[in-house]
Amino acid sequence: MIIERIVSDGLAHNSYLIGAGGEAAVIDPRRDTGVYLDLAEQHGLAITHIFETHRNEDYCVGSLELAEKTGAQVLHGAQMDFTYGVPVRDGDEFSVGPLRLRVLETPGHTDESISLVLTDTRVSRDPFLVFTGDALFAGDVGRTDFFPDRLGEMAGKLHDSLWKKILPLGDGVIVCPAHGAGSVCGGGIADRPLTTIGYEKRTNPALDMDRDTFIRFKVAERHYYPPYFAVMERYNRAGPPPIPARTPRPFSPDEVAGAAAKGALVVDIRGPSAFAAGHIPGSLSIWQRGISSFLGYYADYTHPIIFVDEFDCGVTDAVVQARRIGYDLISGYCAGGMTAWARSGRLIGRCGTCTVHEVDATRYILDVRDIDVRKKTGHIPGSAHIYAGQIEGHIDEVPRDRDVYVICDSGFKASLAVSILLRHGYTRLTTVLGGMTAWMNAGLPLEKEVAPLMGAA
Amino acid sequence: MIIERIVSDGLAHNSYLIGAGGEAAVIDPRRDTGVYLDLAEQHGLAITHIFETHRNEDYCVGSLELAEKTGAQVLHGAQMDFTYGVPVRDGDEFSVGPLRLRVLETPGHTDESISLVLTDTRVSRDPFLVFTGDALFAGDVGRTDFFPDRLGEMAGKLHDSLWKKILPLGDGVIVCPAHGAGSVCGGGIADRPLTTIGYEKRTNPALDMDRDTFIRFKVAERHYYPPYFAVMERYNRAGPPPIPARTPRPFSPDEVAGAAAKGALVVDIRGPSAFAAGHIPGSLSIWQRGISSFLGYYADYTHPIIFVDEFDCGVTDAVVQARRIGYDLISGYCAGGMTAWARSGRLIGRCGTCTVHEVDATRYILDVRDIDVRKKTGHIPGSAHIYAGQIEGHIDEVPRDRDVYVICDSGFKASLAVSILLRHGYTRLTTVLGGMTAWMNAGLPLEKEVAPLMGAA
Amino acid sequence: MIIERIVSDGLAHNSYLIGAGGEAAVIDPRRDTGVYLDLAEQHGLAITHIFETHRNEDYCVGSLELAEKTGAQVLHGAQMDFTYGVPVRDGDEFSVGPLRLRVLETPGHTDESISLVLTDTRVSRDPFLVFTGDALFAGDVGRTDFFPDRLGEMAGKLHDSLWKKILPLGDGVIVCPAHGAGSVCGGGIADRPLTTIGYEKRTNPALDMDRDTFIRFKVAERHYYPPYFAVMERYNRAGPPPIPARTPRPFSPDEVAGAAAKGALVVDIRGPSAFAAGHIPGSLSIWQRGISSFLGYYADYTHPIIFVDEFDCGVTDAVVQARRIGYDLISGYCAGGMTAWARSGRLIGRCGTCTVHEVDATRYILDVRDIDVRKKTGHIPGSAHIYAGQIEGHIDEVPRDRDVYVICDSGFKASLAVSILLRHGYTRLTTVLGGMTAWMNAGLPLEKEVAPLMGAA
Amino acid sequence: MIIERIVSDGLAHNSYLIGAGGEAAVIDPRRDTGVYLDLAEQHGLAITHIFETHRNEDYCVGSLELAEKTGAQVLHGAQMDFTYGVPVRDGDEFSVGPLRLRVLETPGHTDESISLVLTDTRVSRDPFLVFTGDALFAGDVGRTDFFPDRLGEMAGKLHDSLWKKILPLGDGVIVCPAHGAGSVCGGGIADRPLTTIGYEKRTNPALDMDRDTFIRFKVAERHYYPPYFAVMERYNRAGPPPIPARTPRPFSPDEVAGAAAKGALVVDIRGPSAFAAGHIPGSLSIWQRGISSFLGYYADYTHPIIFVDEFDCGVTDAVVQARRIGYDLISGYCAGGMTAWARSGRLIGRCGTCTVHEVDATRYILDVRDIDVRKKTGHIPGSAHIYAGQIEGHIDEVPRDRDVYVICDSGFKASLAVSILLRHGYTRLTTVLGGMTAWMNAGLPLEKEVAPLMGAA
Repeated sequence: MIIERIVSDGLAHNSYLIGAGGEAAVIDPRRDTGVYLDLAEQHGLAITHIFETHRNEDYCVGSLELAEKTGAQVLHGAQMDFTYGVPVRDGDEFSVGPLRLRVLETPGHTDESISLVLTDTRVSRDPFLVFTGDALFAGDVGRTDFFPDRLGEMAGKLHDSLWKKILPLGDGVIVCPAHGAGSVCGGGIADRPLTTIGYEKRTNPALDMDRDTFIRFKVAERHYYPPYFAVMERYNRAGPPPIPARTPRPFSPDEVAGAAAKGALVVDIRGPSAFAAGHIPGSLSIWQRGISSFLGYYADYTHPIIFVDEFDCGVTDAVVQARRIGYDLISGYCAGGMTAWARSGRLIGRCGTCTVHEVDATRYILDVRDIDVRKKTGHIPGSAHIYAGQIEGHIDEVPRDRDVYVICDSGFKASLAVSILLRHGYTRLTTVLGGMTAWMNAGLPLEKEVAPLMGAA
Repeated sequence: MIIERIVSDGLAHNSYLIGAGGEAAVIDPRRDTGVYLDLAEQHGLAITHIFETHRNEDYCVGSLELAEKTGAQVLHGAQMDFTYGVPVRDGDEFSVGPLRLRVLETPGHTDESISLVLTDTRVSRDPFLVFTGDALFAGDVGRTDFFPDRLGEMAGKLHDSLWKKILPLGDGVIVCPAHGAGSVCGGGIADRPLTTIGYEKRTNPALDMDRDTFIRFKVAERHYYPPYFAVMERYNRAGPPPIPARTPRPFSPDEVAGAAAKGALVVDIRGPSAFAAGHIPGSLSIWQRGISSFLGYYADYTHPIIFVDEFDCGVTDAVVQARRIGYDLISGYCAGGMTAWARSGRLIGRCGTCTVHEVDATRYILDVRDIDVRKKTGHIPGSAHIYAGQIEGHIDEVPRDRDVYVICDSGFKASLAVSILLRHGYTRLTTVLGGMTAWMNAGLPLEKEVAPLMGAA
Repeated sequence: MIIERIVSDGLAHNSYLIGAGGEAAVIDPRRDTGVYLDLAEQHGLAITHIFETHRNEDYCVGSLELAEKTGAQVLHGAQMDFTYGVPVRDGDEFSVGPLRLRVLETPGHTDESISLVLTDTRVSRDPFLVFTGDALFAGDVGRTDFFPDRLGEMAGKLHDSLWKKILPLGDGVIVCPAHGAGSVCGGGIADRPLTTIGYEKRTNPALDMDRDTFIRFKVAERHYYPPYFAVMERYNRAGPPPIPARTPRPFSPDEVAGAAAKGALVVDIRGPSAFAAGHIPGSLSIWQRGISSFLGYYADYTHPIIFVDEFDCGVTDAVVQARRIGYDLISGYCAGGMTAWARSGRLIGRCGTCTVHEVDATRYILDVRDIDVRKKTGHIPGSAHIYAGQIEGHIDEVPRDRDVYVICDSGFKASLAVSILLRHGYTRLTTVLGGMTAWMNAGLPLEKEVAPLMGAA
Repeated sequence: MIIERIVSDGLAHNSYLIGAGGEAAVIDPRRDTGVYLDLAEQHGLAITHIFETHRNEDYCVGSLELAEKTGAQVLHGAQMDFTYGVPVRDGDEFSVGPLRLRVLETPGHTDESISLVLTDTRVSRDPFLVFTGDALFAGDVGRTDFFPDRLGEMAGKLHDSLWKKILPLGDGVIVCPAHGAGSVCGGGIADRPLTTIGYEKRTNPALDMDRDTFIRFKVAERHYYPPYFAVMERYNRAGPPPIPARTPRPFSPDEVAGAAAKGALVVDIRGPSAFAAGHIPGSLSIWQRGISSFLGYYADYTHPIIFVDEFDCGVTDAVVQARRIGYDLISGYCAGGMTAWARSGRLIGRCGTCTVHEVDATRYILDVRDIDVRKKTGHIPGSAHIYAGQIEGHIDEVPRDRDVYVICDSGFKASLAVSILLRHGYTRLTTVLGGMTAWMNAGLPLEKEVAPLMGAA
């Protein structure tokens, strides 16, 4: 039996290929499907089934593309009217060689969410493993906030899915969730690549509440909803367009400047200090590994994107990440990287950097971390807060006539926020390197909000 | 948390790298250690600990080599006097970043066998995963026949290790064994890459016996003991020699012939039909993926080895496999493969092939399968049996004056047996393509031994 | 300056990527264009120009596909009315960064053939290198037999192209031809990856003749014209269809048998002895590396193809080779290779093998080598001749009531011929392993035709 | 015939593998010899000969290591008493399959320098290709300044080697030199991967002088001699030590700080702006691709080295480059890169950056380019000059009480110079991004030295 987990790093997204006896199924494929084809070929497996545990919001699914390449059937939960594929319902079973996949409808994250129970008919009828999608993660459960007017209802559904469908499978069943640590689909997903029902029952805080407490907890929970989610939802219901044939190409500095003048978005994928000391004016600062997490907050789908790196070595990966969230209008990259731009004699943007020891508490300190993290760990006394993904909508809250120190967890999101502020004409900006992690490691003073994370009433 | 399983295919051997927080441990490394270094580098982990669950018999351990490359400490069970490394005892704990590995002494397969319980201190003190070495496999348990005069004692020890140490860890604990399906270290290892204690308790037949039944079962069990095991045991107690610097080189047909004349062993790594229709006279037939399973039955460690393939494409892998079981005296390979030999105008050996439909029941039919498989599935009426790995010791049982049809499971081991018989001057030999699998698929008649697999008394 | 030669092995086809200063040109791209995109990305080059030295006959060009992926312009000779791309004429110049490519019209192989002279404007106006397409090879010149009624005219044109256009560039100019040793586009191409005009002038036999001798020599020359050439010519004039999305998939033996019954062609890509001792009945024997050379003789474009290997490891390459010559209807491969078929208990085909020492001169000996090779090197006394690619059209020449020994150079083409004869019901067939190479190495008697290679009158 | 050029990027060093008929020779192998073994295996070639065109000064040769792995013979010029290998003399010939390599003694760069003329005996006795070592490059010739008291003598020897040995081989002979553009072994090596004698005769400026002019030109030429050259010379005469087994490991920020306190050299391999805005105090700034060019100026061989990158992705390459020039005492790298350091809350170093438009002409402007480039292209009026590799020896020339703008070609060497000045306590430092390339592209004023590059008398 082959069980392969395929991780899409920036998204912390897990897809899976399982197979035996010449056949394979893929669960929640991403859009760049070569990895599944390669694995299937390597193991001599024909991909016969493609399951989607739900219509994903945070990336483009690859089901249609993979189906076209393999002839496999696409299957998803019946509680949504997808324009492609075949609906499945609780109890439906599918054979993949000697393996069986049985559908559990496990709504809560969304209405059409399903889980898939794997049994090996060569061994027994006992469940061996369950693909839980966004219902159950290692150390967390799925978010239930996609329907603002049905918060309690969805939380209740998730509770029932967990307690009535998934947990009864038995402690010894292996759990393969759709996301790992770092995903925007769960706030506290733990850092372990797989888990079991038994281990989750013993250690997952969300499974240690009664139904009412669970619902109250989930209703109070806040998660960000990046604007690109709406595009993904539309794409994934109808099947996203195929990845375009045109490959990104190198641009000379002149071409970069020309494209930018016509509306192309230049995205600088270097780290915070490189960006601070010299960048293409107007560029957005999103470090390479953050592309699939943050590009969707600020890039629209109608303007071309041009990447710039220090030595171009991260560009290929950036393109892959951007395409995973549907950005197909990627023109290219600045050939020779930032150095080529600098050599061209053109203007260069800059901002300040400082360590946590140099932060001047009398200035305007802007904390751009996730609000939950800010609440949980505390913040710099007197600091303001706007999430890095929401700067543009709150731009007027940031004073133009003061020195602004921008801080996040490590420095990357701060650099993104600084780049947005620079695009709006701000000039007195400093990125705090090392962020609140450095602040806390240096033992500097913290302030905590009095209000609890979850309201009592 | 990183959990990587590294499979050495022919041996069905699992080694593991686990890590978090910048540190990693490797469990039961093989001799070609590049894979561990690459994984550690890729994840930014320093390998700090190397554990051996026991002194392995079926391959050369890579602990010393890996320790030299990383500075890590080698740790193994205290119940054997290894000439290197540090002995560990029940309850000893080791930190690998935020992870803990706790030693369970789990004798039975050998006296010094240990298991390692993994906990994640960031989450809880509950056990998350256990590395069981050769104590517990998916669907089977370790063999207990290495001390012929202590069969019952070792079986009892294994039972106690399982029931008193491993199973009590809890159903939800993930089990990572040292071998997978196909290993010579267990007769019935199931085809799943990992398992849990709960799933094994529900499905593993060896866990469904009381202590006495278990002991009787294990005492009655038969396993083969290839001659090279003795070399591995000596190597692994003292630490095997480093892999030699000299790389195998291409040989012209003249050089192959010259080397063979001086005692080099020519090993033909093609399939049964290719070997049958034309091979270098005197060569041993071991298909590429069977090198690490069967070379150790017939190759000694003092004569050079030369591989021959159809197009050379499998030679690199054959060399890796041979080195994993300590064959360092590999001179090279026949450049241009069997075609080059044929083009040279030299003599070529041949034998017959036939399908199961063409087997003549009046001739001498030699079944070379594992005796347990023969007993379990039945055999061709009237067929004789010698295991493929033991032909040389039983050569006189095979008649020289009759047509001999050699059959195994699929044809590979039959080809090996034929090649041994050819080396002893036999001429009237036919390899049955497709083996007993074809025989059974064709619905041809089977005979079963009356005696049960496990004696009643 | 980047100069990369990309070799398509079976076809002995050379394509090239050259670039500098951020731009690149590709000469004669093949259909699987990933290699050009990867090279361009690795060197930070935008592919801006795609040149075709002529409408190729022996493979599908990748110009349209590469143009779609890069936006580059496709350019070819003006003397053919291609339905895509831009015609170029003698003296036209194109800038690729600081490099210049100047067109030389060099007809002879075809009317629209061009060569491309590379100069580096950073250095001098002197020619540095010339891409000669099928005009000039290392050790040979292009074939001129595509227009049977214009043989002398085309040979004369080629002579003029060589002597008036290419050779005058100067001895020190590097020559990059479109084919290397082993191509069907030239009988005597030498085994060197590149050459110079000076070296060719000193060593190329075709350049050592006056115009009349050259024309007589070329007019007398014979080359094979595989049926698929006609398809390639049609494809390449209009632009071939894109490579289909559907990937070949594993077939079970049942599925292979079912597909074959409906007309699928099973192609066995193993070597001659493997095929001889056991193959799927009805399969065609074309060794893996011979797919792009020989599939086009016997496979049509309307029936699906299924490959079978010993262990599947060569299937991917076989698919690539088949696609390079336009075979898009590839269903898949026999999962688990020939062993899986044998294990299924189905019937297996066989033929005999022998060494050259065992060839019985009183039987029918069929020589299937290239006729030119047969003439040049001599043949077995009394042997008949049909080229391996033309067996089907000459099937009646082979006696059904005699033992037939089939021989070629090494054994591969003999196995192909045997497989064709088997498909036509022949049974008394033996493949001579090692072929005429073995025959000559063994010092066995040869006969030579009296007639010279090139007729005097 | 296989001709493979293997480029060691930072060093712009070319080594070659040539082979045919089952045998291969390697010319000037580098120390990490895997690439040669892989190529030989891929083509089925046994490496039988290893040639050194001379005792190299700029990198560790891999001859001994490769000889140990292959059993090949090491051969070098007779005019130096190497402690290993076999001396060869003018006219000596070596067979590599059907190829011949004939020795030409071509002193000038060094006394023992040889060239190797390749002929293909299957074709003719005419020379096909020549490996010229450091005698003749594309567009340049080797430096002749290694014996300061024999400048004229060596230049004369080189002239004779070129005119009497190499050029007479004929215009059509391909030239394969030991270095490409960017090497420290020649000031004006052109950007083309290979060349011919004919093309060099037409375009190489050094071949357009009479003997006296040539000698005057070479005697006047200046080249830098990095301190590590002396180590390489000692190593290469005796055979360098094998690459150590111990692999570099990840260091936590604490460990980096601890090691640095004990004398380890921290080398920051990011670009100039990343370094400027935040670096580990005391670290040396050498961008990744500059390691093999500049580490040898400032790192000694007795202190450990620790690399720091932005995301660790360049560390592996940095280690390879450092080992190529003999740095074996590489402890590791800062795990998690500069971000991990920042997150630790430790102090961070900084310096300024500016564009060429912001350079204040009234400040101290320090030009750290190669002096030849400064002379050839002109410089900023009033700027001082110290070569980036020689800052430490001229540290007192740089004022401590003034703002210092450091400029080079693009910014990399300036960053190196700044890092040296920072280590000496300078604080008022600004790296000019884009360097003189930007300056010239921006059309800013230049000053040229009156003195010609080559003295008239």
